[in-house]
Amino acid sequence: MSDIDMIRAAAARIKGHARRTPLLSSPFLDRIAGRRVWVKPECLQHTGSFKYRGGYAAVSALDDATRARGVLAFSSGNHAQGVALAAAQHGVPSVIIMPSDAPALKIANTRALGAEVVLYDRAGGESREEIGEALEAARGLTLIRPYDEPQVIAGQGTAGLEIAEDAAEMGIRRADVLVCCGGGGFTSGIALALEADAPGLRARPCEPEDFDDTARSLASGRIERNARTSGGLCDAIITPQPGEITFPILQRLCGPGLAVSDEEALRAMALAWGRLKLVAEPGGAVALAAALFRADQIEGDDVIVTISGGNVDADIFQRALSRYGSLDT
Amino acid sequence: MSDIDMIRAAAARIKGHARRTPLLSSPFLDRIAGRRVWVKPECLQHTGSFKYRGGYAAVSALDDATRARGVLAFSSGNHAQGVALAAAQHGVPSVIIMPSDAPALKIANTRALGAEVVLYDRAGGESREEIGEALEAARGLTLIRPYDEPQVIAGQGTAGLEIAEDAAEMGIRRADVLVCCGGGGFTSGIALALEADAPGLRARPCEPEDFDDTARSLASGRIERNARTSGGLCDAIITPQPGEITFPILQRLCGPGLAVSDEEALRAMALAWGRLKLVAEPGGAVALAAALFRADQIEGDDVIVTISGGNVDADIFQRALSRYGSLDT
Repeated sequence: MSDIDMIRAAAARIKGHARRTPLLSSPFLDRIAGRRVWVKPECLQHTGSFKYRGGYAAVSALDDATRARGVLAFSSGNHAQGVALAAAQHGVPSVIIMPSDAPALKIANTRALGAEVVLYDRAGGESREEIGEALEAARGLTLIRPYDEPQVIAGQGTAGLEIAEDAAEMGIRRADVLVCCGGGGFTSGIALALEADAPGLRARPCEPEDFDDTARSLASGRIERNARTSGGLCDAIITPQPGEITFPILQRLCGPGLAVSDEEALRAMALAWGRLKLVAEPGGAVALAAALFRADQIEGDDVIVTISGGNVDADIFQRALSRYGSLDT
Repeated sequence: MSDIDMIRAAAARIKGHARRTPLLSSPFLDRIAGRRVWVKPECLQHTGSFKYRGGYAAVSALDDATRARGVLAFSSGNHAQGVALAAAQHGVPSVIIMPSDAPALKIANTRALGAEVVLYDRAGGESREEIGEALEAARGLTLIRPYDEPQVIAGQGTAGLEIAEDAAEMGIRRADVLVCCGGGGFTSGIALALEADAPGLRARPCEPEDFDDTARSLASGRIERNARTSGGLCDAIITPQPGEITFPILQRLCGPGLAVSDEEALRAMALAWGRLKLVAEPGGAVALAAALFRADQIEGDDVIVTISGGNVDADIFQRALSRYGSLDT
C-alpha cells in the first residue's frame, strides 16, 4: 500500500531527475474564477506529463537484478512514455506494447525515448495482455501498471509534496486542489501527500462529463464504471473505472469530484495557452476548466489546479484556438 | 551605464517578484540541433515576456517621490505590459501610449494590468513623442525606455545571472547563449551578467533575416539600420537599429549575430509547442530556430537559448501548427 513514507522515498529517488514544477498564476485567470488560481504545470515535466514521476519511481524501486531484465508497459499514452524514459535513464530495456494502428509519430516518439515497441493487431483480436504475459515470462520483464501500482502512486504523490511546500510558502493554508483524474493514481498520490504535509488542502478529482466514473463512485460509495471508454476528447484520463488500490484512498481523503464538458476543456486549453503560455492536452485541462467554470462548487479564496499533461495533436490544439483563442469570450 | 553591480542590485529588488525560470530541454530538440539545447523560457515570466524584469527593475529603482508621480511607456508591446504590471505592483500610476488602431484585446489587456491607456491617431499624424512629453511635463511622469535605459538593461541582465547559475550547476562551462534581439536590452544585460559570472558563456544576438541590424552592426563595427521596421512576423523584436547604450556592450562582449527566416521561426514555435509544451511568439522563437537550423554557425556540445516571450495571436500560432505541428518534418 502506498503511504507518505513511500512518497518521501520516491521523492528522494526522483530528485535531480524529475522537474520541480512551480505554481504559476495569471490575474486574468483569477478574474474568471473569482478567486486566486494556482497552476501546477506538469505539462512541463519530462515526456510532457506527470506520468514520468510514477514511471521513474517504479523503475527506480525495483531491485537491481529485476530491473536489469527490463520493464513492460501497455499503451501509446503518457504512462508508456514516462516508463520508457525512466528505463532508458536507468540503462535498462523497456518494452511498450502498442496497437498497430497507433499514430506513426507516437510510435516513433516512444522508440526515440529508448523503448522497444511491440505492436499488436487490435482489430484482428490479438490480446495485448497475452502478448505482455508471454514477454514477462520469456524475458523476465516487470509490468509497470499505470495507476493501480503502489510505487507509481508514490511517484505521482511527489507532485503533492511540492504543492504542499509551495502553498505553505505562499501562506495558503486552506484550498481545494483540483486534480485531472483517470484511474486515480495522480489524485490518490497527491491526496496522500497533502494529508501528511498540508491537511488544510483537499484533493478533488476532475473528469470529463461523460467519463466521470470517479465522481460517481465517490458519490455512491462504491466503484462505478463508465458507460464507454472511448470517443472522448480527453483520452489521456479516460479509464473504465477507478482503480482497486486508488479508490479507497480517494474515498478516504478526497472531496467531491467535478466534471466539465469537452468544450470547457478546449476553452481552458486556450486560456492556458494565452494566459500562462502553456500547452495543455484536453484531459490535462479539465482541472483548470473546473476552477474557471465550476467556481460555485469550489470553496475558499485560493484554488490549486494541476495541468497534468501537454501531449496533444496539432489539429485538436488548433480547434481550441480557433474556437476560443481570441480570449475575449 | 549598466554594469554587473546594477544587475545584482536589480536581482535583489526583483527577487520574489519575477519568476525564476529554469533551463528546459528535450532529447528531440537535441537530436535536431546535434548538441544539447537548453531553453530558458521567459515566455513563462509575468506578462509573458522577459520585459517584466526590465520594467520592474526600472520602476523599483526610482526614488519614492518620483515613482509616486507615475511612469510612462510607449507601444502596445511586451515592454508596456511589463511596465504596467510593475507600476501596479508598486501602487503607482502608469500611462501607456498606444496607437488607436491597436487590437482591442491588447488595449484591454494593458488596462487590465492597471495602466491608463492614452490612444493616439497614428494615421492622422499625431506624434506619440509629443503626447508623451506633454504628459511628462503636466503630470511629472517618468518615461521608461524599452532598451536604451541602464536600469532596464540591468533588469534584463537578471536572466543572465540565472543562466550563469544554472549552467554552473549543470557543469556547462563553455557555450554560446543565443538571445532574441531587438534593441539589444536583453542581449546586453545577459552579456554583462555572463561576463561576470560565466566568462566561458558567450552571448550571441539572434534576429529575423530581414531585420538583422544588430548582426550587421556587429560585423561592420558601427550602428547599421534596418531598411524597414514593419511588415515582419517577428514584430516583438524589430527595432530600427541597435541602441546607443546597448550597442557598445554588444560590441565588446557578444559573438557574431545569427539570423533566421520567418518560416524557421514558425517551425521553432511548433517544436517548442510539441517538445517543450511552451508557447513562443515568433520573435521569441528566433534563438531556438538558430540553435536548431544554424547549427553549423554554433560551437560546442551545449547551446543555451532564450525564448523571450509568448505573446502571440491565435491566428499566427495556428499558422505555425498547421504548417509544422505534425513534428515529423
